Amino acid sequence: MKIQLEENATLPLGFKAAGVHAGIKKEAKDMALISSDVVATAAGVFTTNQVCAAPVKICRKHLTDGQAKAIVMNSGNANACTGAEGLAHAEAMCVETASQLNCDPSEVLVCSTGSIGKPLELEPIVKGISLAADVLASDQGMAAAEAMMTTDLVSKTITTTLSIDGKTVRITGMAKGSGMIEPNMATMLAYILTDASVPSDALQSALSAANAQSFNRISVDGDTSTNDSVLLLANGAADTAALNPSHSDWSVFCEALNAVCLDLALKIVRDGEGASHLITLQVTGAQSDSEADQAARAVANSMLVKTGWAGSYPVWGRIMDVLGYCSAHVEEEKISIDYNELPITRSGQVADSSPESVLAITQEPEYTIHIDLGLGAGSATIYTCDCTEEYVRINL
Amino acid sequence: MKIQLEENATLPLGFKAAGVHAGIKKEAKDMALISSDVVATAAGVFTTNQVCAAPVKICRKHLTDGQAKAIVMNSGNANACTGAEGLAHAEAMCVETASQLNCDPSEVLVCSTGSIGKPLELEPIVKGISLAADVLASDQGMAAAEAMMTTDLVSKTITTTLSIDGKTVRITGMAKGSGMIEPNMATMLAYILTDASVPSDALQSALSAANAQSFNRISVDGDTSTNDSVLLLANGAADTAALNPSHSDWSVFCEALNAVCLDLALKIVRDGEGASHLITLQVTGAQSDSEADQAARAVANSMLVKTGWAGSYPVWGRIMDVLGYCSAHVEEEKISIDYNELPITRSGQVADSSPESVLAITQEPEYTIHIDLGLGAGSATIYTCDCTEEYVRINL
Repeated sequence: MKIQLEENATLPLGFKAAGVHAGIKKEAKDMALISSDVVATAAGVFTTNQVCAAPVKICRKHLTDGQAKAIVMNSGNANACTGAEGLAHAEAMCVETASQLNCDPSEVLVCSTGSIGKPLELEPIVKGISLAADVLASDQGMAAAEAMMTTDLVSKTITTTLSIDGKTVRITGMAKGSGMIEPNMATMLAYILTDASVPSDALQSALSAANAQSFNRISVDGDTSTNDSVLLLANGAADTAALNPSHSDWSVFCEALNAVCLDLALKIVRDGEGASHLITLQVTGAQSDSEADQAARAVANSMLVKTGWAGSYPVWGRIMDVLGYCSAHVEEEKISIDYNELPITRSGQVADSSPESVLAITQEPEYTIHIDLGLGAGSATIYTCDCTEEYVRINL
Repeated sequence: MKIQLEENATLPLGFKAAGVHAGIKKEAKDMALISSDVVATAAGVFTTNQVCAAPVKICRKHLTDGQAKAIVMNSGNANACTGAEGLAHAEAMCVETASQLNCDPSEVLVCSTGSIGKPLELEPIVKGISLAADVLASDQGMAAAEAMMTTDLVSKTITTTLSIDGKTVRITGMAKGSGMIEPNMATMLAYILTDASVPSDALQSALSAANAQSFNRISVDGDTSTNDSVLLLANGAADTAALNPSHSDWSVFCEALNAVCLDLALKIVRDGEGASHLITLQVTGAQSDSEADQAARAVANSMLVKTGWAGSYPVWGRIMDVLGYCSAHVEEEKISIDYNELPITRSGQVADSSPESVLAITQEPEYTIHIDLGLGAGSATIYTCDCTEEYVRINL
């Protein structure tokens, strides 16, 4: 089934959103609020970083019952490495939101993104929550997506509709990314909303599966953040029967969810800090899927390879070098590399494609590199980007 | 004992060198030749990359008897990923050198450095060997060091003298580095010469130990090259008794060798592609030395941390993030970080040092970052550098 995606932030039925300027950043929107009219089932995946931000800890706690009514978030400060005070502030964000929305603080999920280690000032946050609650509306999805941005150049939203039990169900996602991006079990921040009715255990398994083939398969710079969180809320407002793995439309729902997650993940790579090329790295022929994954990630995170991609050269020698030192087993003379369909390396040596045909591919903003290790049936795909001078300037 | 190092390339007794322009590069010197008047004992450590260059394979073979009379090397082409032809060319370099020096090809060690995957043209190489043999002289150490350079901005040499059996012994080292630098068992290229008399097994163990605390402890960009080689030749011309671990001056020799290797290793980091800061990263308090090493390498290779160092900010939040996702066990609230002696992080949160005092350190070209994990007795030191826009420009 081909999933039709729409490039907008139309919210599913029964959801409202807001994005406002609370004063954490100088000028741009810096707080978002998303609420469901009724308590929704909720699922989440979070960073596996041992150093994780206060809001991640609170989210994990508030998700134990698989229910949520709202998401509150701020950009400009990650509330990470902020100790007991940071935890108290993340709790306070939930309490303040609950008071505005007339629900229980445990029904509020909380996220922060921005600088690590800076104490979070509560005053603008409290003001921001009140401002956001005042303007919550069903047509403010884009404002919420904008408020999530840090060094993102574009907001990242996607929506799709599907038919479940003959009724129209919508899935809408929004995300922010940019730097410190090699999610492990989750990504920076992404929110996915649906008006389908899905029990929380089925919702969690659908989200985990979607995450494994999208957010967990991207890398901008190899750095796994302290704040990565993907949240999925399903409020049932489309009035379908409850979806679960035995429902005939379950796979339709999962495919649509997968497509939404992959679209957001690719948007994050495409807008990676300073990125000028989106590279789809396919590794096949490894001894195992796990070795293929290790090889693909090593190539995706090599500074020399990434800077080489920025320069439109095929840098296959650098890729060979990385394959040689990565933790996957390789045999030099069995390695083939193709850029799109063009042979670049055969038997570990240069293939005789013309420089012009190579350049025609490497100057494209998006292309695929296929590395075949020639050893087994293991395969993996990683989506990544190049590293330009702009990446360095942004992070100086 | 404090080792006195001298910043020059004075060769030990009984060694000659040459550096010439053979035409592999457009203008700069691109071939070096080093020879010992007599057959020397020889030791080497090489890249552990599964994809390794032809000259590395030949060197390993020629070193099996622990003897060598000459080293021949070219820059501008790595002779890596060049298949059977590459191997034949590396062999030919030894044959040609042996014919010029009137020795056996198996007594010649061969190295190449430069672009990977480009077939090596033999014609300029053969011409270069002949040119170099013609100008071999005891005062041409610096010319050989210059011929090793690729994107290096400065040549890297060091020499020291010590007294063994009341006789003066010299140890002289030369190296090239720059990019693709995270040696694993060896580094890009370094040659160390001594006129001490050392049997080859003792020589190899001294070199392996020296390498473990110098070349194997540096990282410029986390990329382990296909060509890393460190070679050590001892020709006995200083007329000492044979040195070995039971000789009373053995530790003096090893300390001097360690100092020479560490000096060259630090010169490689200081001249890392685009580097503007040399950072000594000390990790203590890990659960094991190996975990300390993993933590230090993860921090040293984080693109976000490296670009942050270029900007003179302490980026301790990014360091905390890396510690969280590295493979070492950490507990956020037990982590302390100091820049030189200045507290930056205490209990995983910001310490209250003034921004001015932090800036006074981070604007220095060289400083030490001490990370204490507060868990155990494991420790490790890694020498690394920042990542600037210049690194990207060089590798575009």
